[in-house]
Amino acid sequence: MSLIIGIDPGSRLTGYGIIEKDGQKLKFVDAGTIRTETTEMPERLKRIFAGIDRIVKFHGPTEAAVEQVFMAQNPDSALKLGQARGAAIAALVNLDLQVAEYTARQIKQSVVGYGAADKEQVQMMVMKLLNLSIHPQADAADALAAAICHAHASGSMSKLAVLNALGGMARGRSRNSRRR
Amino acid sequence: MSLIIGIDPGSRLTGYGIIEKDGQKLKFVDAGTIRTETTEMPERLKRIFAGIDRIVKFHGPTEAAVEQVFMAQNPDSALKLGQARGAAIAALVNLDLQVAEYTARQIKQSVVGYGAADKEQVQMMVMKLLNLSIHPQADAADALAAAICHAHASGSMSKLAVLNALGGMARGRSRNSRRR
Repeated sequence: MSLIIGIDPGSRLTGYGIIEKDGQKLKFVDAGTIRTETTEMPERLKRIFAGIDRIVKFHGPTEAAVEQVFMAQNPDSALKLGQARGAAIAALVNLDLQVAEYTARQIKQSVVGYGAADKEQVQMMVMKLLNLSIHPQADAADALAAAICHAHASGSMSKLAVLNALGGMARGRSRNSRRR
Repeated sequence: MSLIIGIDPGSRLTGYGIIEKDGQKLKFVDAGTIRTETTEMPERLKRIFAGIDRIVKFHGPTEAAVEQVFMAQNPDSALKLGQARGAAIAALVNLDLQVAEYTARQIKQSVVGYGAADKEQVQMMVMKLLNLSIHPQADAADALAAAICHAHASGSMSKLAVLNALGGMARGRSRNSRRR
């Protein structure tokens, strides 16, 4: 059994999600967002760092996953996103967590079974895989998705659980998307 | 009397410099670089965070200054620089230091007396103002320059010390640069 924390860092909202992996089974533990909209940059980074630090100390996850940024938009927003990522990842590595990075495509492939899935599909599959009855906030869902991807990637967990929960839905849609 | 730490974060090299401000007088305390070239991103951020954390805990500065990034190059390098900045600033704010940001132009203006000064002029003035007999490494010099700028900006320190040390050199050059 292991606890995995997923993080979706952003300069305004940083999502986090913690799941428990017990053999083939995934269980929701906690998720939420750290809001930093209303303050100056150093204070934002302080809140992100302190927020992640507190969550990690509280739950004690042993593994961490973050979505890799590939195609940053413009230099200015890339810098801001980078700063948020830097503060969030510093909080993880400062507590000796190893941080795995996954591309958006890897996460979608792992969670939905289809690398070009849209946000709603990811959110729906996160809910299915973790038996959630309410919609998580978008950044929290992305953080949970990163954690699920890491659970699938690490260890020998088969894709069976995913495919079972999936029930063919996402595969059906994958055929006609991206080709239009 | 106050201790000021200046930081020049970078994904490969992060410079730091600590000065003491006693009324009009500035005194060199420490400077150096945290090298992170040879490792993966999360480990880089860990070293930057741990390095700054250690230096702040050792010297106990009460104020911090960082150069503000305005014109980031391309999105990819902006993201990397942002991550390094995020880890460095997180280390400062985590220890309850207020972080002041100054543009490169403000720092040059404050240190050399001329906002478009080149790297060598900044380095030379850092050496003069702090009575250094050896050339600091470039990133350490930039960090010391940020700390000096903060010393000049904060409190009522007059420009006299700068102008005295300056001896007209930089002002002489400021007239014919940038107009070519």
